[in-house]
Order: sequence, then C-alpha cells, then structure tokens
Amino acid sequence: MPGGDATPVEPAPLHPSLAPLVWMVGTWVGEGLGSYPTIEPFAYTEQVTVSHVGKPFLAYAQRTWSVDDGRPLHAETGYWRCASDGAVELVVAHPTGHVELALGTASGTSVAMASATVAGTPTAKEVTEVHRRLAVEGDRLRYELDMAAVGRPLGPHLRGELVRAAGERRP
Amino acid sequence: MPGGDATPVEPAPLHPSLAPLVWMVGTWVGEGLGSYPTIEPFAYTEQVTVSHVGKPFLAYAQRTWSVDDGRPLHAETGYWRCASDGAVELVVAHPTGHVELALGTASGTSVAMASATVAGTPTAKEVTEVHRRLAVEGDRLRYELDMAAVGRPLGPHLRGELVRAAGERRP
Repeated sequence: MPGGDATPVEPAPLHPSLAPLVWMVGTWVGEGLGSYPTIEPFAYTEQVTVSHVGKPFLAYAQRTWSVDDGRPLHAETGYWRCASDGAVELVVAHPTGHVELALGTASGTSVAMASATVAGTPTAKEVTEVHRRLAVEGDRLRYELDMAAVGRPLGPHLRGELVRAAGERRP
Repeated sequence: MPGGDATPVEPAPLHPSLAPLVWMVGTWVGEGLGSYPTIEPFAYTEQVTVSHVGKPFLAYAQRTWSVDDGRPLHAETGYWRCASDGAVELVVAHPTGHVELALGTASGTSVAMASATVAGTPTAKEVTEVHRRLAVEGDRLRYELDMAAVGRPLGPHLRGELVRAAGERRP
C-alpha cells in the first residue's frame, strides 16, 4: 500500500498553503482539565498528532485517557486547511456523534477557531457551538476549548498543555 | 500514554451496542474506481481501518493512493455508532473541507447510509448528499458511494472491493 503504514516512503515537503500552520505539525503529549456546569471536573492525559502527506491539508487526531485509571475518554479526528490571508478551516468528527466545521485565523504560532456548523446524530448530546484557541511557544502547545451544549451558553470546557513528543524536531 | 501507540494494552472487549457492525472491524486493503460526470474516471488502491477501544463507537479511517504512481489521493476519518434496532450513525471529516453526518441501517453484514448533514468550508467544493452501502461476505468488503455535488444529482462516484489484510482474523 503506497504511503501506508507498512511502506515508509520519503516524506513529502509540506504543501506551501500550510505555512501558517507549520508550527502545529508533530506529535504532542501532555495533560488537560475538563469542566462544564453539568459535570464533575476531570483530568486527562492526551496525545495529539498533526501530520501531512504533501497535500493541502493537515491530518489531525487526538485521544485522551483518564488520569485515574488510564481508561480511554475522548477522541477526535479531522483535518486543518488554510485559505488565503491566514484564514484557517477545520473539520472534525467526534465519537460522541458530532461533526464540527470551524473557521478562524492563524496569527504567528497561534490559531483561533469558531464553529460554523455543529451537527449531532439522534443519540448525541446537544452541542451548538465550539470555540478553540491553540498556541505554541517553543516546544509547548497550549489550548483552550469553549463549548455551548445541553442548553448552556458558550463557556470553558477543556484546557490542555502539551509538549512535543521526545525525539521530535520542530518542522 | 495509556492505550497510546507506544503502550500496547490488553484489547478491550467490543462494546455490546456495536454487535450490528462487528463484521466491519479490521484492516481492509484493495482497489476502487472513481467516476463522476465532471471528472475523468480514476483507479485507486485503498486501505480502510475500523477499530475500537471498548467504548460505544468504531473508529474509521480510510486512505487511497493513485494506481498510476502511488501518490496520495483521498482520505477520510470518523466514527460509526449504533443506536437501537439496527439504526447506525456515521460521522466523517474529509480533507476536502467537508463534514458528513449520515444515518442508516445495518442488516446482516451490510449497512446502508444516507447523509443527513453535509457541510463544507468556504474553499470546499459543493457537496450536498452522500449515500454509502457497505457489505462484507467472508473476508471481502464491497462498497458503493453515491454523491450529489457541484450541481449534479445523486449518482455513482466510488466503487471498491477490499479484502481483510493478511494475518487478520475475523472478529
């Protein structure tokens, strides 16, 4: 399978359109805190991977585990794209039965996104809005995610701080 | 990272709600043909992985490569969920800037899905509807994907036939 897991190939150069997000490429590990008015606060460990194949998108995958017992918690997966003038597009699927389409802007080594579409399956909880902010300083990535869900207004949900995985170089 | 790539853990049992889709779990490789009234037909190789972590969703990832020169073509990533009575939910993110939320029904070792929501970013092409049919017989997975896009009505877009990757057992 060309380019598949079993056949390493020469890494493709980053697509030029992705320059505003190059600082995000890599594997990131760390911890986060979740909260919302309707739930008990919780702590999690997290791994985020942002990768590319030379085409004009970054592949994004995230997983979290409970700090308490290592059981899997959330995951999400999708793609980042860049339009012109620092405009950024994000599409994400969530195992909770949601899709999220967000638009925003990159500035330096940070990006701020606001959902334009959030849709849920019949068994999914009501989520109406998601805002994300990510910023990298050196080898440290910090993010904040705010959410409007289950009838509550937009408010803090997740805060995380990750570091570039050992052995990785900045792109 | 518990459960992460670096730390293999004992595989969790499949969540009971996923019984209607157990036949889909695995790694699948094969070939497909793409067509649409607005493009030249094209052939691709493909890898599909459907996996789980014991929670009530299946993680889904797909990649395709050109048969001609092995260059990456499409990819998509998301999650399958089961509701009651064979009802199935699918959420997918596409690197083309689309999110797709589809509802359908599992029957035996097949599933038929129709999009309930398709949304695209400002730089994405117009896609308004996606229908998917997947069926497994033995170690062979066949699928068809129809699409309504760029002003055309719902019609054939992708047809693929994959086999369970070598060394994999049926779940």
